[in-house]
Amino acid sequence: SLAFQKTQVTHGIRELTLCKDGEGKIGLRLRSVNNGLFVCLVSKNSPAALAGLKFGDQVLQINGQDVAGMDMEEGHKILKKCDKNNIKIIVRDRPFERTVVLHKDSTNHIGFQFNKGTITRLVKDSSAARNGLLTDHQLMEVNGQNVIGLDDKDITNIIRNSSSVVTLTIMPYILYEHMVKKMHGSLISKLMDHSQPAI
Amino acid sequence: SLAFQKTQVTHGIRELTLCKDGEGKIGLRLRSVNNGLFVCLVSKNSPAALAGLKFGDQVLQINGQDVAGMDMEEGHKILKKCDKNNIKIIVRDRPFERTVVLHKDSTNHIGFQFNKGTITRLVKDSSAARNGLLTDHQLMEVNGQNVIGLDDKDITNIIRNSSSVVTLTIMPYILYEHMVKKMHGSLISKLMDHSQPAI
Repeated sequence: SLAFQKTQVTHGIRELTLCKDGEGKIGLRLRSVNNGLFVCLVSKNSPAALAGLKFGDQVLQINGQDVAGMDMEEGHKILKKCDKNNIKIIVRDRPFERTVVLHKDSTNHIGFQFNKGTITRLVKDSSAARNGLLTDHQLMEVNGQNVIGLDDKDITNIIRNSSSVVTLTIMPYILYEHMVKKMHGSLISKLMDHSQPAI
Repeated sequence: SLAFQKTQVTHGIRELTLCKDGEGKIGLRLRSVNNGLFVCLVSKNSPAALAGLKFGDQVLQINGQDVAGMDMEEGHKILKKCDKNNIKIIVRDRPFERTVVLHKDSTNHIGFQFNKGTITRLVKDSSAARNGLLTDHQLMEVNGQNVIGLDDKDITNIIRNSSSVVTLTIMPYILYEHMVKKMHGSLISKLMDHSQPAI
């Protein structure tokens, strides 16, 4: 289905056209990991969110310029210098993430526990266990909806209200930690785009 | 092309049928990471290699039994107890790995340096930089051929002898380190299946 396709992490390359808002902001923060520049914050209702940028996307080019090896300051500087409109960005779809599709059982469970969005325990004989969900992984999306920085009870509600097929997007915690290091937690939960994906 | 498809990491689930060789061996070592059981060694010419198991595959079931949460000893014990033939294994295709496709430039380079198989530097304006290859990642396969534990000069030769399109399979070093921890390096380089994939 289209909904399913939209939630898949493809690791493919795509080109986006961005603009700046009335205050000259794109709504994007970058971070350098392993000589790549990664999207580590997409503000809600920002040009970046509307263009479909996601946490974990790897920026490859900005207006034709390779960004490999740049640090976050250099990346932010280039974005700042860009014109207000027609900013061309080439990104690779979330290299550190992958999706796992789970099915609720007759008691409406998919079979794992989590703490601050990190998967901590798999329930025996559950969909999570059968499908190879892993602990020490961070929940990034539930059915394509960004849950980074949300309270655990909000994430639980999103899963509870999901249909019986639940698509989780996950990343090893150790890489996630790298990506949000030094970024204040409240920044993530307040600014991050958590809107449901349009289908 | 078929060759290209064969080298892609799908993260999908597949079922294999294994047997034991004359000495009762499958040619497989497992390791527990994040409550999942992973293939960390496939011996050359073993039943495991012939069945197409790969380093990094996550074993989900052995003869109908979920293995989530098991440690390596439990996993090895179950395999030992299996009959000689018709061992059914369900695996998820290498969850920690992904492929990056690079193109050689006019000087025959793809643009990165590595040390003991770990990518250490990206060359500016190279295919590696443009395509978002990352440092601190381990080379797992080159065009579908396992290079884990090979000498750097052997890996260099494989890349040099490749056609202009080079498909690399990589994994974050930090996860690779987890997977081979406590396994003796010579074990990997001596036993591991490094054969070229049949096309």
